[in-house]
Formats: sequence, C-alpha cells, structure tokens
Amino acid sequence: MKKVGVAILGLGVVGGGTYKILTEHREDYKRNHKVDIVVESVLERRRERAAELGIDESKICSNIAEICSNPEVDIVVEVMGGVEPAKTFVLAALNAGKSVVTSNKELFCKYSHELEKAARKNHCGLFYEASCVGGVPVIRTLLDNLQGNRITSMIGIINGTTNYILTKMSSEGASYDEVLKEAQRLGYAEANPSADVEGYDATYKLSILSSLAFHTKIPYTNIYREGISGISVTDINYGKRLGYAIKLLAIGKNGDNGIEVRVHPAFIRASHPLASVNDSYNAVYITGDSVEDVMLYGRGAGALPTGSAIVGDIIYCATHSSFQYSPFENTEKAARSTKFIENFESAYYIRLDVIDKAGVLAKVSSIFSKCGISVAQMVQEDIPVLPKSENSTVPLIFITHNTKEHSIRKAEQDINALNGVASVASIIRVVN
Amino acid sequence: MKKVGVAILGLGVVGGGTYKILTEHREDYKRNHKVDIVVESVLERRRERAAELGIDESKICSNIAEICSNPEVDIVVEVMGGVEPAKTFVLAALNAGKSVVTSNKELFCKYSHELEKAARKNHCGLFYEASCVGGVPVIRTLLDNLQGNRITSMIGIINGTTNYILTKMSSEGASYDEVLKEAQRLGYAEANPSADVEGYDATYKLSILSSLAFHTKIPYTNIYREGISGISVTDINYGKRLGYAIKLLAIGKNGDNGIEVRVHPAFIRASHPLASVNDSYNAVYITGDSVEDVMLYGRGAGALPTGSAIVGDIIYCATHSSFQYSPFENTEKAARSTKFIENFESAYYIRLDVIDKAGVLAKVSSIFSKCGISVAQMVQEDIPVLPKSENSTVPLIFITHNTKEHSIRKAEQDINALNGVASVASIIRVVN
Repeated sequence: MKKVGVAILGLGVVGGGTYKILTEHREDYKRNHKVDIVVESVLERRRERAAELGIDESKICSNIAEICSNPEVDIVVEVMGGVEPAKTFVLAALNAGKSVVTSNKELFCKYSHELEKAARKNHCGLFYEASCVGGVPVIRTLLDNLQGNRITSMIGIINGTTNYILTKMSSEGASYDEVLKEAQRLGYAEANPSADVEGYDATYKLSILSSLAFHTKIPYTNIYREGISGISVTDINYGKRLGYAIKLLAIGKNGDNGIEVRVHPAFIRASHPLASVNDSYNAVYITGDSVEDVMLYGRGAGALPTGSAIVGDIIYCATHSSFQYSPFENTEKAARSTKFIENFESAYYIRLDVIDKAGVLAKVSSIFSKCGISVAQMVQEDIPVLPKSENSTVPLIFITHNTKEHSIRKAEQDINALNGVASVASIIRVVN
Repeated sequence: MKKVGVAILGLGVVGGGTYKILTEHREDYKRNHKVDIVVESVLERRRERAAELGIDESKICSNIAEICSNPEVDIVVEVMGGVEPAKTFVLAALNAGKSVVTSNKELFCKYSHELEKAARKNHCGLFYEASCVGGVPVIRTLLDNLQGNRITSMIGIINGTTNYILTKMSSEGASYDEVLKEAQRLGYAEANPSADVEGYDATYKLSILSSLAFHTKIPYTNIYREGISGISVTDINYGKRLGYAIKLLAIGKNGDNGIEVRVHPAFIRASHPLASVNDSYNAVYITGDSVEDVMLYGRGAGALPTGSAIVGDIIYCATHSSFQYSPFENTEKAARSTKFIENFESAYYIRLDVIDKAGVLAKVSSIFSKCGISVAQMVQEDIPVLPKSENSTVPLIFITHNTKEHSIRKAEQDINALNGVASVASIIRVVN
C-alpha cells in the first residue's frame, strides 16, 4: 500500500484537530483510498501539547529544515496562522518538493502569488480549502464545480465571531459590549477582537473567494471594510420590525460596471436563506449565470470542522498525481483591467433622531429628493409614555430604494446640518 | 492551446443547456484554463432541434460508432436519460477511450459498477455530478471535501417536482390533485408523474449519494420508499400549527446498528434549515463526525443549473490527467457486511378521527402504552360551529417521541380495530 507521510506545523486548535482526525480514521483511509496516511513529524515547541495529543516524542521537530530534508514527509500541513514564520516555512517546504495544505487565510490572501509560483515550479500541490469557511466546501466548489459559470454575485457570512455576536444581540437584546465580553469568556472571540469585529478576517477570506469567483486577483486592500462595533440593539430591533436580520456580510459582485467588493454589517431580508444563518454558522450564497443560486452552509471554524477541510485536501493530494492552481493570473496586485467600484449601489436603512417631527419630515424629504434618494418604507412613531421635554427626540426610520453610496453620504451631511432639528443616528446598508 | 473535443448525446433540455453554456463561455475557458473546448458532434435525430440551437449540420451524427471512431472527440456527454440505449452508448464511448460525463441518475444508479469497470480499464474519466441535485456540488463534496469524515447522516430534499407540489399545497392550501395538474401545465411535472411523486427519482439519487457517503454500495432496491400522493392539506395545516413543514425527504443514516436508507414524506421542524427549502429548490444536509453539519442548497434541475454541473465536470476532465473512481468496492449488490434496517426509529405524527373523544382517549392511550409509544404533543379540538351529529368525527392529533416503525404499525392496527370509535386517518414520520 502507498504510504504518504505528513508533517504538521503547529499543534494549536486546528493542528490538534487535524492530528486527531488523521489518526482516528487511518484505517478508513487505507480501506477507502488504498493509501496509508501517517503523521511523520510535528513542528511544535510545547512538548506537553504533543504529549497531550499522544504524539510520540520522536516525531517532534524543532526546525523546518529537519522536515524539509525528511524523505518520509510528502505533505506539509501549515496551521500556524500569521504571515511569519509560516511564509518562510511553506516556501521552504515547496522548494523541498513537498506539497502543502494550509488553513492560513492571512498568508494565502497576502502571498498566494509567491506560494503558487513556488508550487508550480516544484510541481507540488498547494491546497487551501481550510483557509475559508472551515468545513464548508467553498474553495473546491469555486475551483471545480462552478467553472462553467460567470459568477455575478457572492454574498457570505464568513466570520463566526461576528455572526455569534450579532445573533446574540438580536435574540437576547444584549448590547455589543456585553455580548463581546461573553464571547471572549467562551473563547469565541479573541482577547484583542479587532481582526474579527472590524472585518479584517472577512476581507482576507473575501479576497481569496472573490479572486477565484471572478477570475482576477482581488487584493484584500481593495475591499471596502466596516466592522460591527457601531451596531446597536435599537437598530437591530427596528430592522426586525421591518422584516430584516442584521449580519456582517462579505459581498462580491461582478457586473457590467466592474467588480465591487465590500465587507460591512447589513440588514438582509428575513426570507433570504442567509438571514437564518445564526450563531457561529457560516454560509456563502453564490449566483452564477448558469447555476443560478447555490448556498453552502456549515461550521466556519473549530478544530474538527477546519480539520475536516484539511484532511479532505490531504487525501486529495495523496490520491492525485496532477495538481491545479488558480485559474487566473495570480499577481501581487489587481490586474489593470479590473475596476473596483467605490460608488456602489445599495438600499439603506437610515435612523434619524428628530425633535419636531412634522417640521423635519418635509425638510428631510426635500434633501432625499435633491440627492435622488427614493424611500421604500418609513416608520415614525410617538413615544406616548414619556412626557415630551423640549429636547427629547423621537426616531424616524427610512428604508430607501437602491441608491448610490455617495448620494447617501451627501444626504447625511445635509441632514446633520439641519441644526437642532434632526441628526443621523445610524445608516446601515440593506440587502433585499 | 490544448483542444478538447466534446460530443453531446441527446439535445433535450439538459443537452441544449450544456451546448449553450459551452459555446457562450468558450473564450472564458480558453482564458482561464488554457483549453479550447469545442463541441465536435451531437447525436440527435431531430435536425430541427439542432438547427434551433444553431448547431451546424455537419456536426450531427446518427450513430454512436461515428462518435467513438472520431479522433477529435475526447469527452462524451450523455444526457439522454433512461437505461437504454444510454448504457450501450456510454460503454461504447469508454471502450473507445473517451471520458464520459453523464447526468443520467437512473443509469448511474443501476449500472455504475459496470460503467466504472470500463472506465478504469480504459483509463478514462467518468463524471456524474449532474446526476444528483443539478447544479448543487454534492457529488464532489462527498468525493473530495468530506473524505476525512465518517458521515453519520444525510437528509436531502432531492426532487424538485415533489418539493414544488408540497410547497404550493402548504402555501396555497390547494389539494394534491389541483397542484399536480398546475405543475404538469407549467412543465414542472411529467404527464406520467409517478417517477417523481412516488419517490423513485429520489431513490436513484439517494442510492448514488449514500453509497458515496457511507463507502459501500447501496442499491436503490434496498431503499424504503413512499411517495407524496397520500398527503392532505388537512395534515399539512395541523403540522404547521405544531411547528413543522412537510417535505419529501431522502434520508441516509449510518449508525451503530447499521445503515438505514429511506425516501418518504415527513414533517421537519420549522427551525431546521431544510424546512425553508421551498419550491423547486433542493438541498442536502450532511452530518459528519469531523465537519459537523454542512448544507448544500440550490437548483436541483433545469437546463442551465444541470448544464453548469456538466460543464464543471467537462472542464475538470479537460484539465486533469488522473481520474478518481468510487472510494468503495462498487459491486452490483450491497456488500454483505452492510445491514439495512427495516425497523428504523422515528418520531411520528398520527391523526385519528374519533367520535367519542373522552371515551377513545383512554383506549388509544392504553394502546400506545402497550406498544411502548410515548407521546410528545397532543392536539384535540372541538368543532363548535357544526352541530354534532351522531356520526360526525373530530380529529385527535399526536406527535410521538422516537419509536420503532413496527410499534407504530402495531398501534395503527389496534386503533383501527376499536370499532366505530376511532380510525387512523394518517401517519406521517417526523424529523426533529
């Protein structure tokens, strides 16, 4: 039977999950694929972590050179995260003729052009299903199944931490700060949560996914980004009443005017399949000119779901003799021919705080009209319980039809200038 | 640039869609994959159909031998449907060294062992993503991405016609017969609808999918099957009130007691992601020991969605030099080691028609107790508007906890024997 040796770089959560799956299912893989996949070595300084996983001391390495020169190692699994030393190690492995399986979205997003060049040169496989959306098979679906299509749109919930926070805020009415603390306590959010809550993690993944979907390199720096820290329970509740759920969406569109890529919180209509993707679940909703709509849903993170994606790649690599690379020119920067739209179109939810309702509505309507914004829904309500003091405000909520981002920003400026009469409390994009 | 010649057997709905995608996207495939995919010939008797699609007369063939001996043809696309002559033609193509892409679930389900044997012998590819769930990437997900898992459960809505009918009955309150007629008029159901509505189509697909998922051949004849023609709007409405949606489910389970495969209508709790898969949309919900839950959702049929799956396979075949086959022993019959459970467990919805409510409840409860059935929910209601005649009945509805199928069948017999007092109006399985 063919033997395939694996080295795992890093025994963190995902590295440990990968080791567990490989060892527990080894006999399955021998029976189903006629291949014996053996973990030959692990790169990990914490010997107690290796011991905890039941890994023999003889398999622990302390430097990449040892792994690169080990003829028993065929596939190197990089699950360290971060750019360095992961990048140096992955390049060393590829240049030593080892195929690489990685879960490292930041590394692949920023340096896939260098890594793929080394992989091609050395005729090695380079697999990264685990880098985006954990166990959900989105990379291979884009690489293989949907190649017959021109993909026109991709909308994803691709960050588990933010989806957990927004789901909790929505179901329990707790504030952002409260839920974030709870998420940190449960290990769903990092001590420094900014990579997740400010949307950076999602831009890395959207860069990888939209490059594949649209067949052109889309650097993460070209992606418009907004996080969820400004979202309030007040707006979530108004959104609910209007038939919307709040999500951090990663959106890629490829239309007649060029490519549009953005990560931001948005209201999505409750009947959209993405609206019921809750807690730490993730999903990607893809529209192509042939396939119409496809949604892939599942766990976007975690030791075993991410390990499942890694082991799927390992088995594929172990049982195939030819490998595929990005089906587009994988350059460092965006191809010149690609336009990235800054003036994208969207519907918007706008909440105003107003003092004199009757007076302000005419003025606001006139501003909307001047900016070419047309209103689809409006909610105005009295707050009958509280006695109205001179400075107390009431909310006035609008949902607009599709309009240009710059029109909304102009209207925001003009409404805020209506001194003493109204101010813009929040603006949230809406996906219908 | 590498040229790859394709022959399409049959210019029906899917054949036409495939031709359209291949010709409209030809330049995309050249740019993205450095391969020129050319439709070299079509096997079709209706010359006017070929003309309608804009296919040059010189490409029309009238016999398979011509295609098999054409050195310009590398890949044969079989989209004729049915067992013969499709089987003879596919075997002829494989034996002539052509790779085959098929959308034919009946053929692949019944004869994959013969077809794969011929493909292996001739070192050809044999692709069948389009045979199950149209454009939804479920075959490749099972073949590649989820190989690291032991899959424990698979629940699918894998027939568009029945899902369309049940969705309409549910949303509009129309009867099965009315909706079926409407579906036939719209072309969503065949003139003879039994392959769809009696669940045969779903058993073919479940046979293919569960064989891949559980790594053992599961012939469609081993699958328990019930259609939807007995489902009434009365039961759909009671189910709704209890928090359930009605679906034709294809269920495969692989547990400690063996493998369980069945196709039947069932109530599924409204909060389950499958419950909101409506109209002609399809979805497969897969649970593995590593990946946890994954759902794949999209169009299960149609010219372009199914064509998308076929063209995905064509591009894969055109750009890979090694092919993969079933990761299990693909025999004609089930492997001996596999047990197929007849006494599966499920929760059940039971609707009784009763005359004397007070009297019958004690008797029915006693039968349930004797049969080891425990009740989770009960609905009994008066019908206050109608004057109660001596023979008028009122409904009494139970949802049970999980119980064995044979216990339910024994209880049904005993309740029906409560002469004049109660009869079993319907029994529907429940998925929680």
